[in-house]
Order: sequence, then structure tokens, then C-alpha cells
Amino acid sequence: MNVIVVNVKTYKEGTGKNALELARIMEDVGNEYGIRMIIAVQPTDIFKIADDVSIEVFSQHMDAIDYGSNTGWILPHAIKEAGAKGVLVNHSEHRMKLEDIAFNMEMAKKIRLQTIACAGNVNVARALATFKPDYVAIEPPELIGGEISVTSARPEVIKNAVDAVREINENVEVLCGAGIKNGGDVARAIELGAKGILVASGVVKAKNRKMVLEDMARALVK
Amino acid sequence: MNVIVVNVKTYKEGTGKNALELARIMEDVGNEYGIRMIIAVQPTDIFKIADDVSIEVFSQHMDAIDYGSNTGWILPHAIKEAGAKGVLVNHSEHRMKLEDIAFNMEMAKKIRLQTIACAGNVNVARALATFKPDYVAIEPPELIGGEISVTSARPEVIKNAVDAVREINENVEVLCGAGIKNGGDVARAIELGAKGILVASGVVKAKNRKMVLEDMARALVK
Amino acid sequence: MNVIVVNVKTYKEGTGKNALELARIMEDVGNEYGIRMIIAVQPTDIFKIADDVSIEVFSQHMDAIDYGSNTGWILPHAIKEAGAKGVLVNHSEHRMKLEDIAFNMEMAKKIRLQTIACAGNVNVARALATFKPDYVAIEPPELIGGEISVTSARPEVIKNAVDAVREINENVEVLCGAGIKNGGDVARAIELGAKGILVASGVVKAKNRKMVLEDMARALVK
Amino acid sequence: MNVIVVNVKTYKEGTGKNALELARIMEDVGNEYGIRMIIAVQPTDIFKIADDVSIEVFSQHMDAIDYGSNTGWILPHAIKEAGAKGVLVNHSEHRMKLEDIAFNMEMAKKIRLQTIACAGNVNVARALATFKPDYVAIEPPELIGGEISVTSARPEVIKNAVDAVREINENVEVLCGAGIKNGGDVARAIELGAKGILVASGVVKAKNRKMVLEDMARALVK
Repeated sequence: MNVIVVNVKTYKEGTGKNALELARIMEDVGNEYGIRMIIAVQPTDIFKIADDVSIEVFSQHMDAIDYGSNTGWILPHAIKEAGAKGVLVNHSEHRMKLEDIAFNMEMAKKIRLQTIACAGNVNVARALATFKPDYVAIEPPELIGGEISVTSARPEVIKNAVDAVREINENVEVLCGAGIKNGGDVARAIELGAKGILVASGVVKAKNRKMVLEDMARALVK
Repeated sequence: MNVIVVNVKTYKEGTGKNALELARIMEDVGNEYGIRMIIAVQPTDIFKIADDVSIEVFSQHMDAIDYGSNTGWILPHAIKEAGAKGVLVNHSEHRMKLEDIAFNMEMAKKIRLQTIACAGNVNVARALATFKPDYVAIEPPELIGGEISVTSARPEVIKNAVDAVREINENVEVLCGAGIKNGGDVARAIELGAKGILVASGVVKAKNRKMVLEDMARALVK
Repeated sequence: MNVIVVNVKTYKEGTGKNALELARIMEDVGNEYGIRMIIAVQPTDIFKIADDVSIEVFSQHMDAIDYGSNTGWILPHAIKEAGAKGVLVNHSEHRMKLEDIAFNMEMAKKIRLQTIACAGNVNVARALATFKPDYVAIEPPELIGGEISVTSARPEVIKNAVDAVREINENVEVLCGAGIKNGGDVARAIELGAKGILVASGVVKAKNRKMVLEDMARALVK
Repeated sequence: MNVIVVNVKTYKEGTGKNALELARIMEDVGNEYGIRMIIAVQPTDIFKIADDVSIEVFSQHMDAIDYGSNTGWILPHAIKEAGAKGVLVNHSEHRMKLEDIAFNMEMAKKIRLQTIACAGNVNVARALATFKPDYVAIEPPELIGGEISVTSARPEVIKNAVDAVREINENVEVLCGAGIKNGGDVARAIELGAKGILVASGVVKAKNRKMVLEDMARALVK
């Protein structure tokens, strides 16, 4: 099933009650179009949102730690207990050490969190695929937050990422990120082999967030 | 007013519903003895605990960021909105860059969060005092989590830290950390010039947490 | 051709003129036994040693940077110009972000530096193999610097690493690290499929460094 | 005595033989005008340059480590043995943890390295002064590498830094950095209370490096 993942980052529009408001809109659109929706939120907001809406809540990150003396770090078990169903790993704004990625992938399996591992290029996507995440999200860093979507600017990156990931493991799906703004971008991503999109400012900072989500949802159900 | 700050770290006994349970015990003991109690919790747990108990909830950390594109980092505004009254800065398990400490101290003033800045030695305590935190907590790293309290092993560290901090700024108070286990340790800390204690495993992992807190509280009200 | 790689770390016995002295011993033993010898040194020592001995000098690290504004970081082009023939990547004492490993592997190819990519477990070894380094060195972190060699304590780790790496790319060879002390350890590593060893304290801190190297060299030429 | 410190960063024009060439020009101009000159170079280049020229060579960084197992990190003793007379601490492109700054300041005293501690703002300059470095260099980050010098854009920053540093310790001198391009900038820095300048691209990437250095030197001897 195709998926829309919205990463609210630490945008003002994605913090606290604003994040909750967006989660409710996503829930509505998801129900209306029969689309799977995931919202990736700050650790402070997981509990309240997971408690309030039916869509899946992911954490934007977790640190490569277990229970213990790790003051101020984000504990995998804590995001799970707060209600997270999954986690972003190695987001472009939170790159991780290879060893810590390996740790997180093991930990996620152990405590049953889904994983979206983020890659800035095809070589990194291939390496991540060896850890068998649920998804590899490909986001060329130069396009993140920009006006031009990766599907327009560099469609071959998506296609090559899909091929590289499949060659390592056929069960790992690819999400398309960076600059996704509308249904047209989404439709092209699916054509290129992606199973969904990872989007941030294009939804979170949109004037009419519901309209943008509906446009994207329509492209996914086609 | 003297204070007991309990840092629950990412201990199993300090995560989620366990942290909430401890917060309630602290609330009871605080009310009983008229002692100020602060619990420093993981970001995932701030909202639930701040919503449930009357004692002050602090975040164990915040990152040196503002609203924006900072996926997976801990936003000062987010911990504030979740209900935190303050924040630990530069804990020994989460040392920060000097520039980021400076940023956090400014941000904390701006959005009205209290600050406990942590130092492993007297030179660092002196440098931190220049930023005018509410408290400097002195915790020699070799004693943290150990069996011997800093007040027994190295009382001069507390005294020297108090002197160094006062020389920079008379309004900055000192907390005593590292190996604090019982009322005797607390009493000595106060004699040495501290205004309270920062404690973790000594309370969180105690068999009878209420009894330990009461013992410490009695030492503070004497 | 089998290889002995000696990492002198920042040991006193591996700094400055001490490192040069060890390099000369390695040169002698290498010539005597017809063994390939590599010494991995600190950036400050590359020029002097590469200028003085005929064995290959590697850098212990390089940062994921290009020419530019990177004060105090280790520039790939600088270690190359100083005389390095290769570089360790992701050593257990200097773990790197996945994205930076990808950058370094590209850069190393571009400016012609050989690469030894280090892994603490089989999953990481597999991921590193996707970048086609010259060698993957497998060193279980719990055995590094210890008394028991990985070939004795956990021989299956070496075998599994060889299998995992070969499955990704047949041209990537495996080095065996962690606790290697003598010719017996070396012989077992080769039997398990390794093409050489990565050794540190076992040589650098040995009372008689020449004797240890000769013992290891004999095991390699058998 | 006023000083010109040139940080060659990892510029192509500041690497290897190019750095050596610049060091020789600095030596000539220094001798001609009786000005103290310091070149801050990459660790790979310390030995060769210190061996060749009479001006002081500084390392651009050192890590907060002692002899031991620290593969690929920059050892204080190694830069000293290679010929460095001092070190930059906390450069804007290499910010350090407060605890590591404290360690480095102790280590530098112990092994007799001079220190230039870098600050992006007045609050950081004040904190650094508590560690008694030889110099605090003030460089507002938004002006580094730019066309407008700090002495033109924000002269009050220099003056306030001088006042703040002096208030903590009268023996700590201030250097002026960020956007320094010519003798006029240097003259204003000295008027504002600085004891010299920390310059990078303005010299290293100048078309005629000797002419720029002479212009700056003249402003210092006035």
C-alpha cells in the first residue's frame, strides 16, 4: 500500500498543538482516500498525538542506546512506550554513524518499530538496504526544502535507488523525498518505482494543508 | 530554598509510567517536608508528567536550535510547550559545545526556562558561571553512579566550585552531584555551600525510593 | 599477497620518532620475509616516515572534506601529498557517519588512496563491502586491545565476515583485527579466510617488537 | 608585541608545498617589518614548515586526548614534537565541547603550547577568558570569509570583547578576526584594543600575498 509520510521537523507549524492539528487533517484525508498516512513528530509530541489520532506516529529519530545512563538522549523504548510505531533513521538533518545505524536496525526489530532509513545518494541507499529497513527514503540533499522536486530535477536518482536497493534486497521499498510539492510530483515518484513519499515543508508549511494532502492522496490512489 | 533534583536518565525505572510513578512519590515527599522537588525526564515523558504532578518537570537536555529544519533534535520551544519549567545543560552524559551552551543560555532566558548547567570540574564550573545559569551542578565524572559520594571523596571540589562560581557571579547557586546516596551526603553538601543536590541512581534505582527521598528531605529541612 | 597492517594509534610508542623507529623495524622484517607491511600513523608523522622508509604509510583517518574552509580537520589531499598510500576508514576509535564513509570512499578512488574500512560486526562489514574498499577489517570491539584474539574467542565472526563481504563483492578482502598477539593468531586468521591482519598494541607495545613481527611474518609466508 | 596570525585552513593554497611557500613569504615580511608572524597549518604540514622557516608554526586544532588508543585523532604531544609552538582552540570551523576546551587549556600549559581560543560572540569570549589562554580571537561567524571586515561592520563587538575579556583576566589579549583584508582593517582593530589579527582567506587567497602582508604589517608597526 502506498504511503504518505509527513515529517514535521521542528517547524513552528509542526510543534505541539500545531502538530496535533496537522495529524488530524492527515487522519481525515487518509480515511477519505484510503491512503496510509504516517506523521513523523518530535519526541515531546509522540504521546499526545498517538493518543489522539488513528494514523501511525513515527519518531523523527532515536539514539543508538539501550536503557541506562544516557541523560538527554532519545531512548528507543521510550518512543515505543509513548506510542510510536516506527522511526526515521539517518535523516539528512540527523546523520548517524554507520555503527549506530546497525544498532538501531537491530533494536527496531527487537522492540518492533518500523524503520525508514534515509539516504542522500544511491551508494548510501544500497548500503542501507543491507540492514533490511522497511523503507529506504532517497532525498538528494541539494533538493531538500527546495522548489524543484527530485522527480523533476533528477528522476534517474529515484530509478537508480530503486534498482540498487532491489539488487540488495527485494523486500525493501523506496520512498521518494526532497522537494515534493503536489500530486504531479507524487505520481511521477510512483511511476519511477517508489512506494510512497517522504514530505516536509511541502505539506507542513502549505497555506492549505488539507488541499495539498488531498492532491497528493489522489495521485497515490490512481 | 534548597532543592532536590532527580535525573531519571534513560533508566528503565525512569522511563514512561515508571517515571510518572517516581514523580508522584517526589510530589508526596516534597509536600510532606516542604521541599522543592524537580524531576528531570526524557523528552517523551515531559507532557504526561507535567500534566499529572505539581512538582517542576525539567528536560534532561535541549539542542541549540530554533524553529526550523532540525529533524529529530530536541527543540527548546517544544519542551516548553510540553510543560517543562527548566532544562539541564551540558550534563556529563551529554556534553555540549561551548557555543551551543551560550546559545542555550540565551534561549532559556528568552523563552523562560530555568537552567542547571553541569560541570565536571572547578574550571568548567567557573566558565559556566559567566553565563548566569540558575544553578551550576558540580559532578566529578569519576564519582558519578559510584558508591562514594563527592561530599566524602572530594569535599574540596564542592567548596572550590562554590568559591569559583561566587567569584564570577554571586547569584549563581551550586548543586552537588555524583554519588549522593543518603541524608548524610545531602547534609554535608549543604554545609559545603551547595543549595541542593542533583541525584540519579541513588534515588531512581533505590529499593525504597520514598524512604531515600524522605531521608534526603529531612537533611535539607534541618 | 598477505599483509600486516600496524596501527600505531596515539600511543607514546607510536608517536614521532618512536613511530619512525617502528617503521624501520617493519621495513626490515618485511624485506627479510617478503611480506607486505603497512604502518598507519598519525597525520603529523606521515611526511617524515613516508620520506624515510620504503613500506607503505597509511593515515589513520581522513575527514569527509574537500579543499576549503575546514580548519583543523584532516584533508584527504593533504595526507596524499604528505606521502600516504592509503587510509583507515571508520576505525573503532573514530567511527564515521555513513554519509561521510560514502564520501571518503569516492574521494579515495578519485585521489588514489587505498582503503581499509573497519567494522565491529558482520552487519557493518556487509554494509561497508557495498562501497568496494580494498579491505574490510573486522574487529569485534569487546576484544580490541585485549588479551584474547578474535581468532580464539570468536573465530565464527571472521568466517561470517568473509562470507558476508564476498557475497556483496568478491574483490573485497578481509583483514582480521582485535587481540592479535602472535604467529598462531595470524595463522588462524588466514585459515579463516582473512588476507592479513590489522594489529596495534600487540606489536606497538611489545617488549621486542622485531621478534613479534617476525613471528607474525613467518605465519603469513607459510 | 602585535601579531599577525594566518590560518591557512584546508585551502588548496594552504596545503603542503603551497603552505610552505606562504610561510616563507610571512618570514620575509616579518623580518622586514619586525612583526611577529604565526602560521596555523594542517597537522600534516607542521613538521616540514617548522623545520624550514623561523616564524612560529601553530596547529589549527588538537583533540582533547592524551597518549593512548585514539586512532586518527590529533594528539597534543604529536603536534608539539612535530614542531608546533601553539594551537588554535575552538575555531569556528571546529567548535569544541566546553569540557574538551578545559582539557586542552590544561594540556597546553603542561606541554607548553601557546593558545589562541576562538569565540563567535562576546559571551563566549568571556567564558574562554576564564581559562587564561594567551589570546582570545573574536570572529563573528556571519562575517568570516566575507567582504566586510568586523572592524567596519561591527566595531563594537571587538570593543566589547576586549572589555569582557579584561574584566575576567587582564593578561589575556584579544585578536580580531573575520573579514580582515587590508592595513586599514588592521589599524582599526588595534585602535579598538586588539593586539593583532587572525586572518585566513584575506591573505591565503590573495592574488599578491606578499603585498597584502606588507600592507597589514605596516599598519601594525605604526
